[in-house]
Amino acid sequence: MKKHIYIYSPSGAVRDKAAFKRGVARLELLGHEVEVDEAALSSFQRFAGDDETRLAAIHRAADSGADLALISRGGYGLTRLLPDLRYKKIAKAIDKGMLFVGISDFTAFQTAVLAKTGAITWAGPALCEGFGVGGEPDTLDGHTHGEAQVPDDIMEACFDEVLSGQGEGAGWRQHRVPAGDTMDSPNRVIHNAVLWGGNLTVLTSMLGTPYFPEIKNGVLFLEDVAEHPYRIERMLTQLLHAGILARQKAILLGQFTDYKLTPHDRGFKLPSVINWLRHKIKTPVLTNLPYGHVATKVLLPVGASTDLSIEGRDALLVWGHL
Amino acid sequence: MKKHIYIYSPSGAVRDKAAFKRGVARLELLGHEVEVDEAALSSFQRFAGDDETRLAAIHRAADSGADLALISRGGYGLTRLLPDLRYKKIAKAIDKGMLFVGISDFTAFQTAVLAKTGAITWAGPALCEGFGVGGEPDTLDGHTHGEAQVPDDIMEACFDEVLSGQGEGAGWRQHRVPAGDTMDSPNRVIHNAVLWGGNLTVLTSMLGTPYFPEIKNGVLFLEDVAEHPYRIERMLTQLLHAGILARQKAILLGQFTDYKLTPHDRGFKLPSVINWLRHKIKTPVLTNLPYGHVATKVLLPVGASTDLSIEGRDALLVWGHL
Repeated sequence: MKKHIYIYSPSGAVRDKAAFKRGVARLELLGHEVEVDEAALSSFQRFAGDDETRLAAIHRAADSGADLALISRGGYGLTRLLPDLRYKKIAKAIDKGMLFVGISDFTAFQTAVLAKTGAITWAGPALCEGFGVGGEPDTLDGHTHGEAQVPDDIMEACFDEVLSGQGEGAGWRQHRVPAGDTMDSPNRVIHNAVLWGGNLTVLTSMLGTPYFPEIKNGVLFLEDVAEHPYRIERMLTQLLHAGILARQKAILLGQFTDYKLTPHDRGFKLPSVINWLRHKIKTPVLTNLPYGHVATKVLLPVGASTDLSIEGRDALLVWGHL
Repeated sequence: MKKHIYIYSPSGAVRDKAAFKRGVARLELLGHEVEVDEAALSSFQRFAGDDETRLAAIHRAADSGADLALISRGGYGLTRLLPDLRYKKIAKAIDKGMLFVGISDFTAFQTAVLAKTGAITWAGPALCEGFGVGGEPDTLDGHTHGEAQVPDDIMEACFDEVLSGQGEGAGWRQHRVPAGDTMDSPNRVIHNAVLWGGNLTVLTSMLGTPYFPEIKNGVLFLEDVAEHPYRIERMLTQLLHAGILARQKAILLGQFTDYKLTPHDRGFKLPSVINWLRHKIKTPVLTNLPYGHVATKVLLPVGASTDLSIEGRDALLVWGHL
């Protein structure tokens, strides 16, 4: 089904323009009408244009009447804009059916929109890393795209389901718990919990501000890239000490990728952090949610009411039709 | 004057044992009695012993009756311990005259002690990086010590002043403001403002928790190491949006070192961040405070009432005898 997709750049400047073009071509190949924002390829310092330019781009996306507004890429730049976003306009567009989709720095937008309006947005791919694969690796912006030759099947299927209004949930299998570590996720079903979260660094960087939503009995999902486990632990500690984690019904850890352990770690690693966290809270901590800075990922509705069932290593998140 | 100095390790494991020994020898050479905590060289994963070990070390330091308790090094590990610190014991030791001195991860201790008790601690050197210089560079723990052959004069003089109860303040000259950027620190004198702060990453990682002090009309000092300017800006944005920065009488930026700009930055750099911040708040933002992960640094009383005078590029912070 042909849909109208609006591409815009609220965060970092697009350096890999070939990936951008491939992404647009891919969405067109899938049968969609792709509209590219006039400032999508703007550049000011590390940003996709100065603050006014990026704000205007977000508001044009909201005004576009598109079925789905997709960020070109993440990076950094949204947190600075949060006081000046026109939340009512954005919520109105969402209320009319617009799907806002993005990842990474986009967590700032999603979290703030949820805090200010309660409106639902989607954690999912960005254009370049999700649909722009297929070329030579590009390292100018610190990430590599294009190692795969075609976009990931599962991501594209989830994207299509959400775009056509048929996405209903996501299931996955958790990692095995290392011998000796704590496994504290007995079988259970959690009903009507608000799903929220995104990038751990970005989410944590909003704690204590008016853009952090007060969600109790929610299901919080987290992912990150290029953050050492001690930094992941320090951020989880902040959420823990702020009372956020214990207030949730479940914590879903997605993919934490692209970090380097050092000789100084001497056995301290990501499973150490997970085991530590499981000792600190009674809230179940699930692993291996297929979401993060990886090719194979699901789309997740931030702010939606969900059911979560846990049976052994298998987990199923269901939000029904939204 | 011979003083009793207690060395302990509340954070990361000491890998550079030669620097540790040199530091102890240096303090002894300066005429002091140095007592080394029994767990000062403990190691568990990346930590100086497990949580119980490090907690016990902190409490032994408080019980030691020493004139000054100095951390061996920073690293990571204090935030995990905050709920279990015995704040009354620590405040009592401080009330009896004990000086707690440290840097980096130690900011978590200092900030929490200030929030929970109002007691004054000192931002200053750690044993290894401050007094243990003089050997071959060691990179196992990600930092290099020992490039200089003797400890820094100014740091040692400040340390001696504080130890003998004669430290009264610190003066410095700010960086020139780049042409075209904002200079918003007109001459003024600020009286009776609480001095607080430390490592930006560690301080920010306590926002939203019970360990973050509510200080209005204070003078907030910040430093960091190995954090890219966009990350520094993201943290400052968090403090800004939380209302912390505008509530202060002045922001003192210390030394931000050891980060790498990338081609993607395209002119975005630390002065860009400072200029941006000066446009966001009316609070004066001063630069070049001689404090941070550098050899030449002053000691600063966290929690003390201070006067700050600004005259052109010159700044003077005075706390009198404490």
